[in-house]
Amino acid sequence: MAFQKVVVAGGGVLGSQIAFQSAYCGLDTTIWLRSEGSIGRTQPKIDQLVKDYHAQIDEMAEALKKSQEEGEPMPTGAWAMGIADPDNFDPDACHKKVDEATKNLCLELDMAKAVEDADVVVESMAEQEKAKIDFYKKLAPLMPAKTVLVTNSSSLLPSTFARYTGRPDRYLAMHFANHIWKNNIAEVMAQSKTSAASFDAVIGFAKKIRMVPLPVHKEKAGYLLNSMLIPFLFSAMDLYVNGISDPESIDTAWVRGTGSPNGPFQILDVVGLVTAYNIVQPYTKIPGFVAPYNFKGISAMLKKKIDAGETGVAAGKGFYDYSQK
Amino acid sequence: MAFQKVVVAGGGVLGSQIAFQSAYCGLDTTIWLRSEGSIGRTQPKIDQLVKDYHAQIDEMAEALKKSQEEGEPMPTGAWAMGIADPDNFDPDACHKKVDEATKNLCLELDMAKAVEDADVVVESMAEQEKAKIDFYKKLAPLMPAKTVLVTNSSSLLPSTFARYTGRPDRYLAMHFANHIWKNNIAEVMAQSKTSAASFDAVIGFAKKIRMVPLPVHKEKAGYLLNSMLIPFLFSAMDLYVNGISDPESIDTAWVRGTGSPNGPFQILDVVGLVTAYNIVQPYTKIPGFVAPYNFKGISAMLKKKIDAGETGVAAGKGFYDYSQK
Ligand SMILES: NC(=O)c1ccc[n+]([C@@H]2O[C@H](COP(=O)([O-])OP(=O)(O)OC[C@H]3O[C@@H](n4cnc5c(N)ncnc54)[C@H](O)[C@@H]3O)[C@@H](O)[C@H]2O)c1
Ligand SMILES: NC(=O)c1ccc[n+]([C@@H]2O[C@H](COP(=O)([O-])OP(=O)(O)OC[C@H]3O[C@@H](n4cnc5c(N)ncnc54)[C@H](O)[C@@H]3O)[C@@H](O)[C@H]2O)c1
Repeated sequence: MAFQKVVVAGGGVLGSQIAFQSAYCGLDTTIWLRSEGSIGRTQPKIDQLVKDYHAQIDEMAEALKKSQEEGEPMPTGAWAMGIADPDNFDPDACHKKVDEATKNLCLELDMAKAVEDADVVVESMAEQEKAKIDFYKKLAPLMPAKTVLVTNSSSLLPSTFARYTGRPDRYLAMHFANHIWKNNIAEVMAQSKTSAASFDAVIGFAKKIRMVPLPVHKEKAGYLLNSMLIPFLFSAMDLYVNGISDPESIDTAWVRGTGSPNGPFQILDVVGLVTAYNIVQPYTKIPGFVAPYNFKGISAMLKKKIDAGETGVAAGKGFYDYSQK
Repeated sequence: MAFQKVVVAGGGVLGSQIAFQSAYCGLDTTIWLRSEGSIGRTQPKIDQLVKDYHAQIDEMAEALKKSQEEGEPMPTGAWAMGIADPDNFDPDACHKKVDEATKNLCLELDMAKAVEDADVVVESMAEQEKAKIDFYKKLAPLMPAKTVLVTNSSSLLPSTFARYTGRPDRYLAMHFANHIWKNNIAEVMAQSKTSAASFDAVIGFAKKIRMVPLPVHKEKAGYLLNSMLIPFLFSAMDLYVNGISDPESIDTAWVRGTGSPNGPFQILDVVGLVTAYNIVQPYTKIPGFVAPYNFKGISAMLKKKIDAGETGVAAGKGFYDYSQK
């Protein structure tokens, strides 16, 4: 069952990217939005994506030309795998696909109409449990039997919602990363009731829209990436708050020791300290003698920096100062 | 108190590198060895380092020339910061320093003679607690008062040994990384009795021999890098042994999500699965309801691969197959 008709519910940061990428890959794509006001906020995001994709294609054409002239491998940062493969790249064809994407894409306020023939509905609404449940309850009776429903939720588990969807066997998670045309991975995660057929269909859909599908066979908070990233960031903050060393030295140890482009405190500045603070809160309730890290100390340290307005790159200051740039 | 006279105890993989780097940086360096047999094993290591340094300098000269001709930044992998800075690089002078290093360096069997005027003794003997204690007991009465003693031990804590050194205030850890001319970091770690003066002197010594010193103000098993790397590798193996996903997908999530050159299973293959197995053993004793990871499952998985001879890159197969290369 190859998906042809795609519906994205929610036209926020991620919803608009998922829908645009799907349309770029030639699929008939609808964004369902709840109000006229939402259209006014989503349309400019689409317009911006059109510009971003065109600019990215030009950049890739230039990087490829340069690397061919010099017989050098292309700098890895230059390429957006969501847009094209480097060894089979036709800039004109890609520009054309961007223009056609705008034709493949429509915005719709009527939920019944949006999903009436949907192969897949990608729920990418704000991260609020109650709002998602309300949405699923309304949506369930409107979808045809064939529709597979996926959630892009970063932190809520699909098992929380399966019973409201009217199709637990055709409900799972498909988790994208911001800037999906560059960070083209999709973590495809089953919950206990998900059927193998719908899991496989979503893996196929991920490939169809040029994502690298990462199968997650059992439900796991944090999927793959955050299941590793969060304890890693905790271990780094633990070194700092326990007075073992300072952020800069800890980052240097990681960067020099593993060849990674960024150390944990540089990553935290990008993620934002408010997000990090929210993530650590539930852990502060673990009794100290069992907790693998000094979560209370980590929480207090982040709180202090947040209170001082040092919330990360976006604020101009976090663990590092970005005001000079 | 700038160190001029350096003694390295132990001429193994790391000892020979530390001694050669110290001699390369113009310091009067002695390797103390326990027997004629040790000389026969250490001298070829030194001879190899002479070749490696010369070859590295030629490689750097070529990379620099090429990047200047093309006005491109140098590929980061090409440079060995332990040998020279890229913006102040004189290949001939570096080659000369290598030749002089062999003159600055001597091998000595008489412990008393080796350390009689030592500013610093770097203990880099095999990772055996008892052998290190025996060595410290013999060494303690032979060192002059000024000598600062450091251990390069990766997994034993300096507080275990401080009482045998006759100078707990002038005893600390200085932990190097393999291939120190490229991986030029030195984790400098105090134990509770280490004086600020000797800590600072070792930081200065690290800089003098072109290491980036990473201060570790309190004793911490695993220093900085392994304190982050080990839980990170555990979190990845946990995903695998719990059936959440497969090594390749987990690596892809990490590499694509963080821009790192290697995922956790690629790192494990380099580290070697036997080392990973040894590291996990003490954790398997943590009761399951408290353990943050499925350590017993991780241990069993590693054991099975080790029994099958799949111990990592060195064996041609680990989580990945290297036999084709
Ligand atoms: N931002 C990221 O980097 C990222 C990455 C991966 C996954 N996600 C997940 O994607 C989802 C959306 O995140 P986002 O960053 O695009 O958020 P956003 O705030 O940019 O967009 C949320 C969208 O949901 C709509 N919405 C909110 N409440 C609604 C309701 N009651 N009914 C209908 N529509 C409603 C909003 O109008 C908006 O279009 C979340 O589940 C989030 O966890 C986000
Ligand atoms: N190999 C690494 O990557 C690495 C990295 C950082 C730190 N270290 C640490 O450096 C130390 C040495 O490691 P290595 O890899 O060089 O080991 P190695 O096995 O290559 O060398 C050990 C040296 O110790 C000598 N030695 C052993 N027992 C002795 C004794 N009783 N008396 C005198 N000399 C004795 C051996 O002759 C040999 O020269 C260890 O503490 C290790 O934890 C190793």
